[in-house]
Amino acid sequence: MSETRGYAAQSPESGLAPINFERRELRTDDVAIEIDYCGVCHTDIHFVQNDWGMTSYPVVPGHEIVGRVTAVGGEVTGFKVGDRVGVGCMVDSCRHCHACEDGLEQYCREGPVLTYNGQDRHDGSITFGGYSESVVVSDRFVVRVPDALDMAAAAPLLCAGITTYSPLVHYGVKPGHKVGVVGMGGLGHMGIKFAKALGAEVTVFTRSENKVAEAKRQGADRVIISTDDDQMADAAGALDYILDTVPVQHDLNPYLQTLTYDGTHILVGLLEPVEPPVEGGQLVMQRRVLAGSLIGGMPETQEVLDFCAEHGITCEVEMLDIAKINQAYERVKRGDVKYRFVIDMATLKGSAG
Amino acid sequence: MSETRGYAAQSPESGLAPINFERRELRTDDVAIEIDYCGVCHTDIHFVQNDWGMTSYPVVPGHEIVGRVTAVGGEVTGFKVGDRVGVGCMVDSCRHCHACEDGLEQYCREGPVLTYNGQDRHDGSITFGGYSESVVVSDRFVVRVPDALDMAAAAPLLCAGITTYSPLVHYGVKPGHKVGVVGMGGLGHMGIKFAKALGAEVTVFTRSENKVAEAKRQGADRVIISTDDDQMADAAGALDYILDTVPVQHDLNPYLQTLTYDGTHILVGLLEPVEPPVEGGQLVMQRRVLAGSLIGGMPETQEVLDFCAEHGITCEVEMLDIAKINQAYERVKRGDVKYRFVIDMATLKGSAG
Ligand SMILES: [Zn+2]
Ligand SMILES: [Zn+2]
Ligand SMILES: [Zn+2]
Ligand SMILES: [Zn+2]
Repeated sequence: MSETRGYAAQSPESGLAPINFERRELRTDDVAIEIDYCGVCHTDIHFVQNDWGMTSYPVVPGHEIVGRVTAVGGEVTGFKVGDRVGVGCMVDSCRHCHACEDGLEQYCREGPVLTYNGQDRHDGSITFGGYSESVVVSDRFVVRVPDALDMAAAAPLLCAGITTYSPLVHYGVKPGHKVGVVGMGGLGHMGIKFAKALGAEVTVFTRSENKVAEAKRQGADRVIISTDDDQMADAAGALDYILDTVPVQHDLNPYLQTLTYDGTHILVGLLEPVEPPVEGGQLVMQRRVLAGSLIGGMPETQEVLDFCAEHGITCEVEMLDIAKINQAYERVKRGDVKYRFVIDMATLKGSAG
Repeated sequence: MSETRGYAAQSPESGLAPINFERRELRTDDVAIEIDYCGVCHTDIHFVQNDWGMTSYPVVPGHEIVGRVTAVGGEVTGFKVGDRVGVGCMVDSCRHCHACEDGLEQYCREGPVLTYNGQDRHDGSITFGGYSESVVVSDRFVVRVPDALDMAAAAPLLCAGITTYSPLVHYGVKPGHKVGVVGMGGLGHMGIKFAKALGAEVTVFTRSENKVAEAKRQGADRVIISTDDDQMADAAGALDYILDTVPVQHDLNPYLQTLTYDGTHILVGLLEPVEPPVEGGQLVMQRRVLAGSLIGGMPETQEVLDFCAEHGITCEVEMLDIAKINQAYERVKRGDVKYRFVIDMATLKGSAG
C-alpha cells in the first residue's frame, strides 16, 4: 500500500476537501500512475451531491485521468515506467460476458467497476478516482496517450470525448451525413469536432442567438435556434443523426422531426424518464430510431485518443487549481466553463494538504 | 370510368353499407384488378370511426387486397390479364424523393397516397379501398401473388405481413437471434412466423396464462407471462429484438429490460405518445434502441409474398361474408378473431347491393 493525497467529499453538503488515503499494492496486472491532470465531469458533481442516491462517502471523484506510469505489475507487458497513459470511467469488469468479450466493458453483464464509488471485484473496497496524486489500475483499463496530444487537453477525452465519439462511429456516421448536435457543453463541443472529422455536415441546435458565433467557431456548418418554430420547421426531415447531449428532461419530438426517414436520435446524457413523451408516430411513420449510448469500451477509448492525435482534435479546457474545485463546481452547474475544467495535479502536490 | 360496388361508411356512426361508385379509366401505367379477397385491418376501423380525425366520407376501407388482373394500361409490361396480384396500403407516391428512389415509398417525402382515404396525385379524387369488386392501381404499387400461396390467406400479408416482416429484416434479425414478440393479434402471430422463418428463437409475451398453448402452436419457443414480475426479471438482458405490435399505450420499460445491450425494441403499432415514459437510462446504459417501422416499401412487399411462398407461411384467416362486416368489426375490437378476417368478395358480387 502507498499513501496518496486527494480531494474528497464527506457528505452531500461538505464540498470537497483534502484527504489522505491508500492506493493498493500492485497486483500482477496493475499499472501505477502518477496523475498529471484530471478533468471535471458533471457526473462528479452528481456523485458528490449524492443526486442519484448511490454515493458512498468519502468519495474521491475524477474519471478523466492522464498521467505517467510509475510502476507495473509482474505480468504487465503493454506498459512501462514513464509511459503517458489515461484512465476513464471504468477500472474493471467481469471480463467474460459477451459485452466484455466484445470490448464493450461499459455494458458488462455484471456491471463495470466505476473508477470512483465502484466496488473492487477482488477486495471489495470502494474505488477512489482521479482527484488525487496517483492511481492503481488493471492494465486492461489503461490506455496510452499519443505523443501528439497535449496531456491536459487529452484528459476530457476519457469521458466527454469517448461518450460522443463512440455513438457517432457505432451508429454509422459517414462522410456526407448530416449530423445535428443538441447541447453545447463539454460533450456537445466534442460532438461537433468528431462529427466534422468523420466528414459530416454539422448542424448545432441552440436556444440562444448569442451562441451562434461560438457554435460556428467550433465547426458548425449551420446553427438552428431551437426555440424558433420557423427554423425548426424548415429543418424538417433534414438530418441523418442527432447527437443529444442534454442531461435533463427535454422534448425530443421537435428534434425527431428534423430527422430524415431512418434517422437516429442518440441520447448520451438523458437517464431520466423521457418526458414530455416521445410520439410513437415520430418513430413509426419515418422508421426513425431513438438510441442510447454510454461512454465507450476500452478498445474504442484507445481509438478515440488515436483518432484525436491523427485529426488534431482536443478538448478546449480551462486549467484549474484543485484548491478552487468547489467554486469550479458552481461554475459547471451554471454552464460557465468553456468547455471543461481540468485540474492541474501539480497544484495538489504543491498544496499543504 | 367503370361502375363498381363496395361497402362504405358514410359517417363515424353509420357502420358500413353497400355503395356504388366509379373506378377511373385506365391510365397508361394502370392495372385493373377484380378483387377476390380483402383482409380486415384494425386501421380500417379507425378510419371508419374517424378515430384519427382525418377521414373523408364516404370511406371504402380495405388495404389487404388480392385479385386478378382484368386489364392493363398501354405502358404496363409487368402484368397481364389473368395475373394473380395484390395491393397493400399505398397506391402512389412522389416517385422521385430519396425514399421513393430507395423503394421505401411508405416514407415518401410528400407522403404516400393511401389505398383508401388518400388523395389521387393526378385528379385530386379520394381513393377508395378494397371492400369492393374492383380497383385500378398504378403498376408500381401492384405486386404478384406467387402460385404457391392461397389467395385468401395471402391477403393479410399486404399489411399485417409486411408490417412485421419489414422491420425484422431491416433491423437485422439473423439465425440464432432471440426475438420477443409483444401482442398476439394479426400482426403478432405473423411476427412469430417470420422470426422463426428467419432462424430466430422466439419468445412471446402475453398477459394471460391461457394464451400460452396458442403461442406455442404459433411457433413460440418460450412464453413469458408479462404480468409475472419474476418471469420478467428472469428474462432480463435475454433478447436481441422485441417486435412490439401493441397499438395502444403500454409501459415499454419492462420489455426494454429484457433486451441485451445493443438490443432493439421495434414499435409497429404505437403511434401515440409513449406513456408511461421510456427511461432514458434503459436506452443509454445498455446502448439499446427504440425503433419504429411502418408497413414496407413495394420491393419488400413483393419480397414478403415470395418469402411466404418459399417458407410456406400464410396468415391464419377467418373468411367473412361482407354482409357481416359490421359484426366483424365488433369482434376485431374485442380481439375475437384468429387472426384476420378476410372478406370473400364473392359475397359482395352475389349480394343484392
Ligand atoms: Zn464523465
Ligand atoms: Zn462483463
Ligand atoms: Zn392495415
Ligand atoms: Zn417520394
